[in-house]
Amino acid sequence: MKIHHIIPLLLLAGGIIVNAQTNQTAGDSKPASSNISGQQYPQIDSELRATFHVRAPDAKNVRVRIAETFYDMTKGEDGVWAVTTPPLVVGFHYYWLVIDGVTVTDPQSETFFGYGKMSGGLEVPSKGEDFYDVKNVPHGEVREHWYFSKTTGAWRRIFVYTPPDYDQNPKARYPVLYLQHGSGEDERSWVVQGRVNLIMDNLIAEKKAKPMIIVMEKGYATRPGEPPPTSAVGQRPAGGGTNQPSRPNFVGALDDVFIKDLIPMIDSTYRTKADRENRAMAGLSMGGMQTFAITLNHLDEFAYIGGFSGAGGGFGGGTFDAKTVNHGVFADAAAFNKKIQVLWLGIGTAEPKQMRDSVQNYHDALEQAGIKVVFYESPGTAHEWQTWRRDLREFAPLLFKK
Amino acid sequence: MKIHHIIPLLLLAGGIIVNAQTNQTAGDSKPASSNISGQQYPQIDSELRATFHVRAPDAKNVRVRIAETFYDMTKGEDGVWAVTTPPLVVGFHYYWLVIDGVTVTDPQSETFFGYGKMSGGLEVPSKGEDFYDVKNVPHGEVREHWYFSKTTGAWRRIFVYTPPDYDQNPKARYPVLYLQHGSGEDERSWVVQGRVNLIMDNLIAEKKAKPMIIVMEKGYATRPGEPPPTSAVGQRPAGGGTNQPSRPNFVGALDDVFIKDLIPMIDSTYRTKADRENRAMAGLSMGGMQTFAITLNHLDEFAYIGGFSGAGGGFGGGTFDAKTVNHGVFADAAAFNKKIQVLWLGIGTAEPKQMRDSVQNYHDALEQAGIKVVFYESPGTAHEWQTWRRDLREFAPLLFKK
Repeated sequence: MKIHHIIPLLLLAGGIIVNAQTNQTAGDSKPASSNISGQQYPQIDSELRATFHVRAPDAKNVRVRIAETFYDMTKGEDGVWAVTTPPLVVGFHYYWLVIDGVTVTDPQSETFFGYGKMSGGLEVPSKGEDFYDVKNVPHGEVREHWYFSKTTGAWRRIFVYTPPDYDQNPKARYPVLYLQHGSGEDERSWVVQGRVNLIMDNLIAEKKAKPMIIVMEKGYATRPGEPPPTSAVGQRPAGGGTNQPSRPNFVGALDDVFIKDLIPMIDSTYRTKADRENRAMAGLSMGGMQTFAITLNHLDEFAYIGGFSGAGGGFGGGTFDAKTVNHGVFADAAAFNKKIQVLWLGIGTAEPKQMRDSVQNYHDALEQAGIKVVFYESPGTAHEWQTWRRDLREFAPLLFKK
Repeated sequence: MKIHHIIPLLLLAGGIIVNAQTNQTAGDSKPASSNISGQQYPQIDSELRATFHVRAPDAKNVRVRIAETFYDMTKGEDGVWAVTTPPLVVGFHYYWLVIDGVTVTDPQSETFFGYGKMSGGLEVPSKGEDFYDVKNVPHGEVREHWYFSKTTGAWRRIFVYTPPDYDQNPKARYPVLYLQHGSGEDERSWVVQGRVNLIMDNLIAEKKAKPMIIVMEKGYATRPGEPPPTSAVGQRPAGGGTNQPSRPNFVGALDDVFIKDLIPMIDSTYRTKADRENRAMAGLSMGGMQTFAITLNHLDEFAYIGGFSGAGGGFGGGTFDAKTVNHGVFADAAAFNKKIQVLWLGIGTAEPKQMRDSVQNYHDALEQAGIKVVFYESPGTAHEWQTWRRDLREFAPLLFKK
């Protein structure tokens, strides 16, 4: 596991190269669940080593890139390049093949919108963790929904999770969680990478979370005539590789999209409980920063706030003045604590130190100001989806208890 | 356009190579709508030439493959490989980069499940045709839905289109079209490649088609213990590159999945009109063959049958005995014509001769047997999605008129 702990230090240097040829599998490798159905590679063994194969008889150099780590592959006599990695962190990792210098998706993998493009994904199983798998429980639906935003002057596609009993109880009304992806991802990511629907189906079946509607928007919005945000097209890791404060370009027109367009549309289209006590917002990395920027600007609209590996504040060494930050919402801690039912901060213990420090510092500053914070650490997971799946598993049960 | 007319003849020879370096653009190229948002290449000019760019300074050989045609790229001094094609057939084409012999998806493209893997897609605009674009009309939803199939012993993911007024009219009931993808594609394809929801939204807004539910299943099913079908993982073009008769392996357990599992589940989950007069089935290529195999086996379940570039029969030179084929359903033409409201056969005029002949021969045999057939030819389009989008545009308005 050591290899993953040094990645963060080298992030800015453009990743590290690992010669992994000498790794041996435990002999019990199985195709990854993230492969295209029927594809044999990549495979993962019981000790979480991944083995990659790609046929490329005419290539000079082939490597596997998993997040920011590169593994040299070795060519066999049959023209098939192969490599076995050391044991990997559990959960979902973006990965690519680098064929003679060109970074492309492994044709054997399903694809996932991340790093500003359709990327490969490797699902490393986590022993005993199946809260995001398809089980024999009632299933909700994920609905692709289009709506027109006056703010952007364009149609927007969103995905909406409706709980298992939504169509069967035509008079029931439900609370709503707005849930945002990270930088370089989009409105598909919580469904495809995050498995939000399966996590919620399982939590609801166990009666751990209340049935709720979950709305997943795109984290990019521009007014007519504005250029598209670079974060929508950049090849940056989720969260932008940094945990900078919620700068205006992380939010921009998105505040108006949420408050003026999206929430009114959701409340008039779905059977919601349309008040702040039944409305939550959360997001991961950049989406967490957007969540804090939008919710702290509209406390009358939200009663629950979640930051998964990304939140508010300017904590890359900046100062936090509880009296003035975010228009002074924290100035009266008692009033804030009465109004906001849950303020959640989560982080993976294997995330880069810069990110951990950032969230920890924000947590400390809020506590010092008398703000109640629920702080969650995901054991052994990185700035990746396994952390955020666990965030959702722990956060959702705290919602809408009133 | 000539280049496309000779492709079919060379299909079995593994495609053709075109040296397209000398093609000039009309100077008005724009990024393809199928690109990742913000990506500049590929671009298409007003005469439908496509220009591809890919940075690969260390590669020895880079080509673009569009369906079965290969275009050699030329390396510039900046390490960027480029090529401009001759004018292309309108509509959606699967495409890839071939980098030193390895076929991969262009990182600048969205991805689409086709050829048994996540492939790139190039949308070539069709002047004056916007029936599959997002317009200012009421929009339905596409719902990801999971259900358990007793036949396969496993959970299956399907996509269900519900029309714009479905949630607003909680007492209304709707007819259902079951709509199947082609070989090497899956339950996502009619949504992502086909834009089924946008086509239907536009038809319904123009009052050309009745509001209906559309169910999109996966065209592969195996009973517990059976090996997965090779067609699910093979790298074959939609339709398998042939138009062979509906062999058992094209249907297999799918007949039971539809009749015993899927249709009862849909009728108990959605507000359907649950009788044969309000139930249609159609499919493209392999999905058309599955449609004919299943519907002709269950005339009491369906009143509308559609084959888009793929249908029934054994017409690679086989015989057609109307008295005996498909358990004799065509033996009494008058009875069949009374029972089946629409039997549809569609084909693109630029499809391979083998496929056109196959559908034409089937059409002729049915007419000779006295069976009423609606025959549709899509002008200038290939064995690709533009043909099938047009099939749907023409077929849907004929449904559920009683």
